Amino acid sequence: MIFTSDNASAASPEVMAAIVNVNSGYDASYGADAAMARVTEMIRDIFAAPDAAVYLVATGTAANALALAAHVQPYHAIFAHDAAHIEMDECGAPEFFTNGAKIIRVAGDHGKMDPAALNAALSSTGTSVHGVQKGMLSLTNVTEAGTVYSPAETTALSTMARAHKLPVHLDGARFANAVIATGAHPADLTRRAGVDVVSFGGTKNGCLGVEAVVMFDAAKAWEFELRRKRAGHLFSKHRYLSAQMEGYLANGAWLTRARHANDMAALLAAGLTARGATLLHPVQANMIFAQWPAGTSQRLRAAGAAFYDMPAAEGFEGAGGDGQRAIMPHRRQIKMAK
Amino acid sequence: MIFTSDNASAASPEVMAAIVNVNSGYDASYGADAAMARVTEMIRDIFAAPDAAVYLVATGTAANALALAAHVQPYHAIFAHDAAHIEMDECGAPEFFTNGAKIIRVAGDHGKMDPAALNAALSSTGTSVHGVQKGMLSLTNVTEAGTVYSPAETTALSTMARAHKLPVHLDGARFANAVIATGAHPADLTRRAGVDVVSFGGTKNGCLGVEAVVMFDAAKAWEFELRRKRAGHLFSKHRYLSAQMEGYLANGAWLTRARHANDMAALLAAGLTARGATLLHPVQANMIFAQWPAGTSQRLRAAGAAFYDMPAAEGFEGAGGDGQRAIMPHRRQIKMAK
Amino acid sequence: MIFTSDNASAASPEVMAAIVNVNSGYDASYGADAAMARVTEMIRDIFAAPDAAVYLVATGTAANALALAAHVQPYHAIFAHDAAHIEMDECGAPEFFTNGAKIIRVAGDHGKMDPAALNAALSSTGTSVHGVQKGMLSLTNVTEAGTVYSPAETTALSTMARAHKLPVHLDGARFANAVIATGAHPADLTRRAGVDVVSFGGTKNGCLGVEAVVMFDAAKAWEFELRRKRAGHLFSKHRYLSAQMEGYLANGAWLTRARHANDMAALLAAGLTARGATLLHPVQANMIFAQWPAGTSQRLRAAGAAFYDMPAAEGFEGAGGDGQRAIMPHRRQIKMAK
Amino acid sequence: MIFTSDNASAASPEVMAAIVNVNSGYDASYGADAAMARVTEMIRDIFAAPDAAVYLVATGTAANALALAAHVQPYHAIFAHDAAHIEMDECGAPEFFTNGAKIIRVAGDHGKMDPAALNAALSSTGTSVHGVQKGMLSLTNVTEAGTVYSPAETTALSTMARAHKLPVHLDGARFANAVIATGAHPADLTRRAGVDVVSFGGTKNGCLGVEAVVMFDAAKAWEFELRRKRAGHLFSKHRYLSAQMEGYLANGAWLTRARHANDMAALLAAGLTARGATLLHPVQANMIFAQWPAGTSQRLRAAGAAFYDMPAAEGFEGAGGDGQRAIMPHRRQIKMAK
Repeated sequence: MIFTSDNASAASPEVMAAIVNVNSGYDASYGADAAMARVTEMIRDIFAAPDAAVYLVATGTAANALALAAHVQPYHAIFAHDAAHIEMDECGAPEFFTNGAKIIRVAGDHGKMDPAALNAALSSTGTSVHGVQKGMLSLTNVTEAGTVYSPAETTALSTMARAHKLPVHLDGARFANAVIATGAHPADLTRRAGVDVVSFGGTKNGCLGVEAVVMFDAAKAWEFELRRKRAGHLFSKHRYLSAQMEGYLANGAWLTRARHANDMAALLAAGLTARGATLLHPVQANMIFAQWPAGTSQRLRAAGAAFYDMPAAEGFEGAGGDGQRAIMPHRRQIKMAK
Repeated sequence: MIFTSDNASAASPEVMAAIVNVNSGYDASYGADAAMARVTEMIRDIFAAPDAAVYLVATGTAANALALAAHVQPYHAIFAHDAAHIEMDECGAPEFFTNGAKIIRVAGDHGKMDPAALNAALSSTGTSVHGVQKGMLSLTNVTEAGTVYSPAETTALSTMARAHKLPVHLDGARFANAVIATGAHPADLTRRAGVDVVSFGGTKNGCLGVEAVVMFDAAKAWEFELRRKRAGHLFSKHRYLSAQMEGYLANGAWLTRARHANDMAALLAAGLTARGATLLHPVQANMIFAQWPAGTSQRLRAAGAAFYDMPAAEGFEGAGGDGQRAIMPHRRQIKMAK
Repeated sequence: MIFTSDNASAASPEVMAAIVNVNSGYDASYGADAAMARVTEMIRDIFAAPDAAVYLVATGTAANALALAAHVQPYHAIFAHDAAHIEMDECGAPEFFTNGAKIIRVAGDHGKMDPAALNAALSSTGTSVHGVQKGMLSLTNVTEAGTVYSPAETTALSTMARAHKLPVHLDGARFANAVIATGAHPADLTRRAGVDVVSFGGTKNGCLGVEAVVMFDAAKAWEFELRRKRAGHLFSKHRYLSAQMEGYLANGAWLTRARHANDMAALLAAGLTARGATLLHPVQANMIFAQWPAGTSQRLRAAGAAFYDMPAAEGFEGAGGDGQRAIMPHRRQIKMAK
Repeated sequence: MIFTSDNASAASPEVMAAIVNVNSGYDASYGADAAMARVTEMIRDIFAAPDAAVYLVATGTAANALALAAHVQPYHAIFAHDAAHIEMDECGAPEFFTNGAKIIRVAGDHGKMDPAALNAALSSTGTSVHGVQKGMLSLTNVTEAGTVYSPAETTALSTMARAHKLPVHLDGARFANAVIATGAHPADLTRRAGVDVVSFGGTKNGCLGVEAVVMFDAAKAWEFELRRKRAGHLFSKHRYLSAQMEGYLANGAWLTRARHANDMAALLAAGLTARGATLLHPVQANMIFAQWPAGTSQRLRAAGAAFYDMPAAEGFEGAGGDGQRAIMPHRRQIKMAK
């Protein structure tokens, strides 16, 4: 019973089959492979965005950092939640890829930005040459706390950014789970909600290692390609990224997997609360942060369950975390693999 | 009556005289001038640090950013107060010079780091490869709120950093005012209090534009020289930086000027409170943050006083600020020029 | 008949089998997987380097740029051949990862550094604070011209670098082919020849996308790990990189494949010369640069052969190139896939 | 008799007087001073460019690096002469400020770009995603060899760049000497010759330390301001930069000084050749590169002359150089101070 991280899971059979299937003969390299052309169309269809530029990389950190770097300057600020992966879990990748842009943290309960906090941050940033300038808004859906933004919530935040002419990024490492959790159309969670560029995750939901960067406005496409190459993220045998993504998307597998993960998380959360645990964040997707009476962790582990302890337990035990720097002092986390 | 910023003042006569005096004949360039050799010894004497490496640059931002860059790696965190100049007022210079290190903000009243907050930040940073690593502590004395750290307070904070083997930087843009305010020996405020490198300000206290970077351990001296050159901060006709600093230090002029500024700030603060103003931070050096009844600002300005309004006045008027991004919502600031 | 690039080929069956084989159950993420422990030992054995630090990334550009960045400072020079991949074919990745180090080009026939040219470059670099300082030597074996350095040639160049205390990097994207071509022990081509860090290629010789970075001195290991994460090159489901490399190395498959490629290149080169083509560089591994009489290219393509034209044909036709910026005006290139 | 470098000289009386003159009372800081408004108009007049954006910094390296950084991206190439200051003498400042752009060296005799070499470099750069892209052309006038480009020569090179839509930078550290040497209008040497941005030097020709960056198209003005601040090159007490430049320009002092320096260099060159020296480059401005019979250097130095030896003397002695990395193996240099 492994509840530590989506990353501990194997790849889905349909993804592995797609890789095996593409492994014959010669194919064009560096993204000109036949499968990539199909993947581009599939993703454009998903987002109802026929002009979107679509690129693949192998890690979520690369997707996020490249998406940001293509849209901000080094003297810019990126507004992100206190708990955002780009702030807490990427060892400074955004600063590296953007050549030193500054992340300005925005508070909010349960992993979601407080609109008033975002507004205050926007208002107080970039008021003179002495400070960094407003550059971009980055949201995360599913959030780091396992909650989801609705289309309306996303729109409310993006509207604030757009009032300052800022582009909006969405870290969608668990985007499939957000689609299931909200029941919303992918376009309504992104493009129609004011998002310009999405890190569309595959790895956590069944792939070996592939994420798409989807830019609804293709104006930055060539710059993105150059930055991807310059960062060592352009694959020569690109077909193996394309195949993963194709296997992941074909026949709606990505949503089927996400639905199962969300359902299992809900089931587990119900079981935990029935047995005396307290949920620290609403369980809306496939992550659980819980605390429970002393002694429980020991019994669970003795029974074979693996999960993370979060820092700052303060009298409680619990499960959670990626072992990263603590950002929500009380969070307890169980991430349900697909 | 100009109370806006030390930067609005002219240079002191003794500094200007030193520049005029050095302006004849040939001299070695790029820091090999005769005056620089004297300045190095004067500064070593001030800090009782006979082995210190001493360099001059023309701006405080350059001094701070180069001092940091010589001591941290791009994957490091720099711990600084919420209101630190390096965080708020340098348009991301630390991120630029360090190639993307991250500033982690530490809270604390009246511009001074809360030791518990520093301890928590240190404990939660760099716990795995996923986050930036602990890199350096940066303190500011006089603080951005016009308060001062005593040697003991400085030691308490530096000791926490040193427990993690971190070097300690002191932004001393107004270091002369801190020396006067504390009555402490410069070495007791720095080297003997666990500080490794000081940005020793001259500009705000009477120079045209010169700051020294003083490294008590000279191991980073050559790296500093390379980074200074690479950043365009090595002056060809370096004698004009040296002369400023020599004029500033000779005969204790730097302390005489700072004492006068501190005395005048105290006098003004007393007058303000006697007339109904409230001081938002203790006035210990040459900065005043005050709020006063509605209508006062208008009368003061009509009478010829210039001062800054701080953001977020919330029912009060006041003076303060450099016009930068607001970091203390209620602060009102008057900076007394020397 | 595809002679364009190794990157157009599919993966070897043994590599694909290894990926399929590892795709079950839970495994530790981020490099702590069971297969990685085995890979580390296999690579240490290959290089007879029991203390080497071994890391995997997915692209050759990442391997090279990270290896360089872990060993040089931004104010350093990297000495590389005029035709080096790091100079010509990585869109500035070394400059990006090192935060602006400068590549100083060293001439030499047939893709190999002229020792006198290296010596001159070393002597004239870093003579004062005004220029970048000597930082690192980077060699490539198999070279970009399809030639190989012997252990003695490698030692001669590394000795020059070591006289200035510089570390030495080897870009071994086609290292297996160099081992076959020279008949030398891998340690004699690297560690015992003065090389500190190797980019040990897998992708071009049968993997989907995996390269090892092998550091014989592990002192930089933790820094490498941080830079890898920060660059988005740490894979969460790392087992799929490990499995590729394990399948590639097991039973000497990597050498078997390379021997076949080298043999086929020799056969093709013999056939070409017998039919009137001129070889522009000695064919020692799996690359051919040839020129031939007008009309030949058209006939070859009509017969189904795919190959690259190099720029600056000057009266000749030919095959070659990656389509990158021309660095050897007359080169014609056929790269034999494994 | 000091012939080493313009940087060994003192400032001109008119410049020093201007600084002394501005040193009274309060003035706006950070470039909003009254003198700067006048300087902007003076420089616009000089270049007949009423809409130009004009900024001051204190060093030539800062001027060049900021001018480049405002116009290129990190994945760009900057085309510069083999001997360009930005390539040889700035310790990698362009790479630092541009976050890793690559300088591509262009050959040419006597410090001037060979148009055919520039054309070849342009044609072979940026042909695919694998290499850096064409970004900017940077010329130097007076060149590093003491020669000058005419307006027609400048136009010929800038036209090649503009055919690829590249902006053009002119390093005019000794621009006054170029104006005198060519007799051309400053606008004809720059704006009307296809130059977009000029580093307009003051330091070498009589100032303490001030250079203007003149952008004929103000579209990048705000970005330039942010980058200047971020690099620590925005002076708080900016009036002292403005005053220098005002004193330098007023009454044509800048041209008077340059004319004298050029005349003295011509006189010295004539005397040297009359006594058996050979000029290695035409002496057109205020620099001399000469070689002379063995024993001459010793006699000159015994007589009190100071000058530089250049590297790689190869049987000759001579004067020259800044002690930097050698870029023209045979150059001998005497720089005439104003």
